[in-house]
Amino acid sequence: MTLTDQPARSKTESCGPLPRGFRYAGVACGIKKSGMPDVSLVVADRPVMGAGVYTQNQIVAAPVVLCRSRTPSTEIRAVVANSGNANACTGESGMRDAEEMCRRVASKLECEPDQVLVMSTGVIGRPLPMDRVRKGIDDAHERLVDGPQAFLESADAIRTTDQDRKTAFRTVDCGGEKYSIAAMAKGAGMIAPNMATMLAVILSDAPICESVAQSVLSAAARKSFNRVSVDGHTSTNDTLLLLASGSGESIAGDDLVRFQRGIDEACIELAKMMVADGEGATHVMAIRVSGAKDENEAEEIAKTVAASLLVKTAVTGGDPNWGRIVSAAGYAKATIKPQQVCLRICGTTIYENGTPLPFDEAALSQEMKRAEEVSIDLRVGDGVGQADYWSSDLTTDYVRFNSEYTT
Amino acid sequence: MTLTDQPARSKTESCGPLPRGFRYAGVACGIKKSGMPDVSLVVADRPVMGAGVYTQNQIVAAPVVLCRSRTPSTEIRAVVANSGNANACTGESGMRDAEEMCRRVASKLECEPDQVLVMSTGVIGRPLPMDRVRKGIDDAHERLVDGPQAFLESADAIRTTDQDRKTAFRTVDCGGEKYSIAAMAKGAGMIAPNMATMLAVILSDAPICESVAQSVLSAAARKSFNRVSVDGHTSTNDTLLLLASGSGESIAGDDLVRFQRGIDEACIELAKMMVADGEGATHVMAIRVSGAKDENEAEEIAKTVAASLLVKTAVTGGDPNWGRIVSAAGYAKATIKPQQVCLRICGTTIYENGTPLPFDEAALSQEMKRAEEVSIDLRVGDGVGQADYWSSDLTTDYVRFNSEYTT
Repeated sequence: MTLTDQPARSKTESCGPLPRGFRYAGVACGIKKSGMPDVSLVVADRPVMGAGVYTQNQIVAAPVVLCRSRTPSTEIRAVVANSGNANACTGESGMRDAEEMCRRVASKLECEPDQVLVMSTGVIGRPLPMDRVRKGIDDAHERLVDGPQAFLESADAIRTTDQDRKTAFRTVDCGGEKYSIAAMAKGAGMIAPNMATMLAVILSDAPICESVAQSVLSAAARKSFNRVSVDGHTSTNDTLLLLASGSGESIAGDDLVRFQRGIDEACIELAKMMVADGEGATHVMAIRVSGAKDENEAEEIAKTVAASLLVKTAVTGGDPNWGRIVSAAGYAKATIKPQQVCLRICGTTIYENGTPLPFDEAALSQEMKRAEEVSIDLRVGDGVGQADYWSSDLTTDYVRFNSEYTT
Repeated sequence: MTLTDQPARSKTESCGPLPRGFRYAGVACGIKKSGMPDVSLVVADRPVMGAGVYTQNQIVAAPVVLCRSRTPSTEIRAVVANSGNANACTGESGMRDAEEMCRRVASKLECEPDQVLVMSTGVIGRPLPMDRVRKGIDDAHERLVDGPQAFLESADAIRTTDQDRKTAFRTVDCGGEKYSIAAMAKGAGMIAPNMATMLAVILSDAPICESVAQSVLSAAARKSFNRVSVDGHTSTNDTLLLLASGSGESIAGDDLVRFQRGIDEACIELAKMMVADGEGATHVMAIRVSGAKDENEAEEIAKTVAASLLVKTAVTGGDPNWGRIVSAAGYAKATIKPQQVCLRICGTTIYENGTPLPFDEAALSQEMKRAEEVSIDLRVGDGVGQADYWSSDLTTDYVRFNSEYTT
């Protein structure tokens, strides 16, 4: 599996194969002033396996509190989501609103409220307009369909400032039986290590048990959503859910390896789409750190390079200013061996064993400017630790957008 | 001592009282294409006390390696500095160049090379143009003068992208005997916690011994230069030096407390000037975190808020988007109590005990836009930990400037 071979900006124009047992809807209820879709509903025909991975922020939105308490579970029936309002920092009433969203869906499906998961994304600190949300849920329920158009509409309804729709599809062959993986996500701002303002739902019809579902999802998150950064700001709402509708014996052995790979690939594809669609982004920085003491240290160094404003702005300008990259690695909370540091940008080696090499600055600058994805390969020693990380560059558009957001 | 009462943008137009026993020069030798001053020399008439605090980056410039090995010391005679070239990531030849700079000064002063300290700042990874540097040192030595004009020229010669000259002066009364403190610094880019691309030299004629000099300097750095951030990028070259020319018994007791306060104030004044003059900055963010478990945790939270691009851009736009501030505190590596979080911006309480309060958004936005210094007071619990932190906002000018730096 070559993870960096995933396309960075594959705008999904069409829908892949969908797993059996789910119906979808996405509707506009007026939470967003723009009139764009803002309520998304995914319903399983019968109780399914549900697992979740959530934000590591200590300030968590009400929907995250509910979801955390309800996963993993074998009894999940639905995921209801809204965009345009994060229902975060909204106190007790926010908690009641999140509960009401679940109750309303549950009453329609004739199930218990704790079989419903809920996600919200958007502005922090404002009460949900519940009259609209109620109507949105009712409309969505009426329009539930098992089909590609409904799936894509459902994916659209979780977008906030996302310019592109983010979906990914995989098919996994388990001893002749084919299972589908269909995933949707939203990203754009507040994307940071350890799950930022992102929502993602992964659906499959593979049969997996509770412990497998949770461990597969956590492992995939670690190498995908937790390895991307737009602005380093960890959100209060991040939620990644996996719903699996298959019944019977849980897949295992080589089949499980293939299923994990499918989930990994779908997550990495979505994560890279988030970075490519980062607010104002013009390039994806694909950072690979090798030679670190272990994978954790490699990740720490890659994260530090990815977050450096000076590295980001250098990439924005197509500037092979390697001093910024090497010095960012030097202040990471991980050990590097300065005399062994090597750096390649877009395949050109420009720093080797702690010493700069002569290179054609103008040619490399042109290549960086042209590339959608600027690769930064940094060797920091002779250890075995390696990690891939993706980040967006930083443009005047990011600053403009974020200094004009609520006022 | 009210640290936040220091003026944020006090451009020093005039020179304060200078300590006895030093001479100064600042000259242009052509390292900078602009022809601006780029070699600075400070010489003590006889061997003095010298202490230093340096970058925590693992990649350190050659001058830092030399200075580290030479401080603290009672035998320091001079500090030679150049701007326009950082002499960092320059391998063995960079080390030889830094040594030669010291040797050249030493031969003129008829002292040992290890009595000379050296600092460099500017572009990383390019060899120093030593023919020019040699000439610069010779010129500077010939022009050494004990006087305000020479002191200010010396301060000018360490500037890189600084728009303002950064100097601070204090007089400390120790039982009738008056001692002067005169300090110069440069900042602008790569300013980050734990000493970023900043150089600073503090001179005094107070009598202090080696251990006192080092501990006074370290304590001052902690509450000043280590509590400011422009872009979070820790540089390879940061150097803060204290030279004290007084002889006789080291000051102690209440006198030492007064001396420490003088050094603290001078350092905080310089640190705040750096932030105010941060690349592209239009506002200083003055962040005070209280109620944390201890001072370290308060500092960690303040640092995280200060570094958040979303907080910075909100301040740029005069946007009282408190959700960004509260959520940044929530992902700091320190404990907060969400139900006790309170936030004031420019004196207006807008979030109390975990719940948003109604406030006049337009009025507060106007006030934020007008203010040179936007105060952010964040209470995160009922602990005793408190810390002040200063950061610049993030503007399109910062991005423009840093995406066009070397190419």
